[in-house]
Amino acid sequence: MPARDPHHLTVAMAMGDPAGIGPELTARVLAEPDIVAAARFIVIGDVRVLRRGAEIAGVDVDVHVAPGIPAALGLASMTGDKPVFIDLQHCDPDEVELGRVSLGGGRSALANFRTAIDLVRAGRADAVCFTPFNKAAMRLAHETYVDEIVFLDEVLGVSGTASEFNIIDKVWNARVTSHVPLKEVADLITIPNILRAIERTQQTMVAAGLSRPRIAVAGLNPHAGDGGNFGQEEIEVIGPAVDHARSLGFAVDGPFPSDTVFLRAKAGAFDAVLTMYHDQGQIAMKLMDFDGGVTLLGGYPVPIATPAHGTAYEIAGKGVANVGATSKALLLAAAMAARARERSAATS
Amino acid sequence: MPARDPHHLTVAMAMGDPAGIGPELTARVLAEPDIVAAARFIVIGDVRVLRRGAEIAGVDVDVHVAPGIPAALGLASMTGDKPVFIDLQHCDPDEVELGRVSLGGGRSALANFRTAIDLVRAGRADAVCFTPFNKAAMRLAHETYVDEIVFLDEVLGVSGTASEFNIIDKVWNARVTSHVPLKEVADLITIPNILRAIERTQQTMVAAGLSRPRIAVAGLNPHAGDGGNFGQEEIEVIGPAVDHARSLGFAVDGPFPSDTVFLRAKAGAFDAVLTMYHDQGQIAMKLMDFDGGVTLLGGYPVPIATPAHGTAYEIAGKGVANVGATSKALLLAAAMAARARERSAATS
Repeated sequence: MPARDPHHLTVAMAMGDPAGIGPELTARVLAEPDIVAAARFIVIGDVRVLRRGAEIAGVDVDVHVAPGIPAALGLASMTGDKPVFIDLQHCDPDEVELGRVSLGGGRSALANFRTAIDLVRAGRADAVCFTPFNKAAMRLAHETYVDEIVFLDEVLGVSGTASEFNIIDKVWNARVTSHVPLKEVADLITIPNILRAIERTQQTMVAAGLSRPRIAVAGLNPHAGDGGNFGQEEIEVIGPAVDHARSLGFAVDGPFPSDTVFLRAKAGAFDAVLTMYHDQGQIAMKLMDFDGGVTLLGGYPVPIATPAHGTAYEIAGKGVANVGATSKALLLAAAMAARARERSAATS
Repeated sequence: MPARDPHHLTVAMAMGDPAGIGPELTARVLAEPDIVAAARFIVIGDVRVLRRGAEIAGVDVDVHVAPGIPAALGLASMTGDKPVFIDLQHCDPDEVELGRVSLGGGRSALANFRTAIDLVRAGRADAVCFTPFNKAAMRLAHETYVDEIVFLDEVLGVSGTASEFNIIDKVWNARVTSHVPLKEVADLITIPNILRAIERTQQTMVAAGLSRPRIAVAGLNPHAGDGGNFGQEEIEVIGPAVDHARSLGFAVDGPFPSDTVFLRAKAGAFDAVLTMYHDQGQIAMKLMDFDGGVTLLGGYPVPIATPAHGTAYEIAGKGVANVGATSKALLLAAAMAARARERSAATS
């Protein structure tokens, strides 16, 4: 096995909800030589949960176990390829029923995620990945938990810098609005909000290696408003925002009817679709690739990625979970971290 | 060739926009023995447009040509299998540029459609089909043209009895709201509106031969409101409407997150998905089957069906248009008409 490059990238991998398919997915990726070779991994969780996941997945997982961040960093700097596991000893798998929402599960997932963010703040992680959270369990553990972005903004003390992207093989999906009631969407469709979303989409895609992404902007209304017959936002807001972005040099086009724009993107006409609201993109992305999609949180100091699918309680513990999206999330995060390092080396 | 049953069903087929793929589709279905055998056809248009369509499609079309409704009905009653064509002589194909919106095209499509409706009102058509309209051309010809339902309600002097359904092989999609701006959707999501939509869906599907359709109701908000975190409509409106419908005996369930409900329907868990707004269903249906979908207007005296795809100006005249959806629309309309006749025979 080759010696590690001391400048090798570190990916902090937080184990998510222990009652879902996360433990088996974590075990499975840690047993894949190609994944483990892509970065140095610091995995965070309770090692007993990982062991149960390995048993379910039927794989052997070989990690150095450390009790906390300092010990883990020491181990990581001394050792070679082997992943380091920070064992928070906070989650006894015998007390976690598979397929069931629990306070304990939510608490452990939150603690793992916070520890990963601590590594980022200490400058010791170049990227973060996490296996799926369960929103209900997260809310039991943290009453005001809305989604990862709101939580991260709170923990990191930032606001409005981040966006969620969904990615399948050839198509990215970005959104102007996300976890808000549908009736509030139209008021949030403003020229500044659309321009900001276009800019972030471009930045994040460039950070992922696409040099000049072609971005299609979806309309808000049926048939993209049908020339003003079914709504004015395309004429008054979205169209002008697209024109302005184009004048700034973005490769952007639209607004397009949302019921055909994904077909065009899938056929190769665009690299990304910017949707106006959550389900406008999610309906399409989940139909195009339910198991393989990756969610990327862009706009933070480091890339943060997770499989787009959820905890899949209905198949937890059966050993049948598809590891594809988790692998892709890890590889995307590692690739983005590598590019960031190259860029910073080039400019320093 | 067998003699026609005098009680044979009559399908009125209105040719739609002459600048799109409609003429070639009409020619192609009229050249298919299985289709022509399914009903007696009275096709309405300008026979020169049909001839051009036949030339484009590379098929021979054999029809009796009549100058108007009375002559057509006389011919239809005297002759056997051969379709009758009502030649309105209102659209010279040399004056219709393929792939271009025109007043002439819109006018002829409207005249054909009105003639089909006249046949229905005269009790001489058991079902109606039409090839795609172009909304912009329709609006040039009829300023207040919004969609087929609004137009039909106007012509037939009815209001609010009809719904549009989209159908692919195994999944129906019905909607609570349709061609309205997105910002108006939430206010239209009321218990009576949802109940009416469930009832119409059931009625129409039973009329199409499904004895007790399993209907999934979509939520309105991201993650179906996520327990009230992203909107209250699921808790206050949609859930109670579903419960009430179930108590009335409908096989209905939900509300379900709209980004996974179509995956479940596709896998066989439901026969229909009732969506809250246009694109919630259309994004999914067009991704699942763009070429093969059928649109059915239910709630009128006779079934009215059309392919779900549009005029496809970009491929008009190339002879490559897929006739699958038009064939399915005709066969569905004929089958529904046959069932209606059986039912009325059973109760008379």
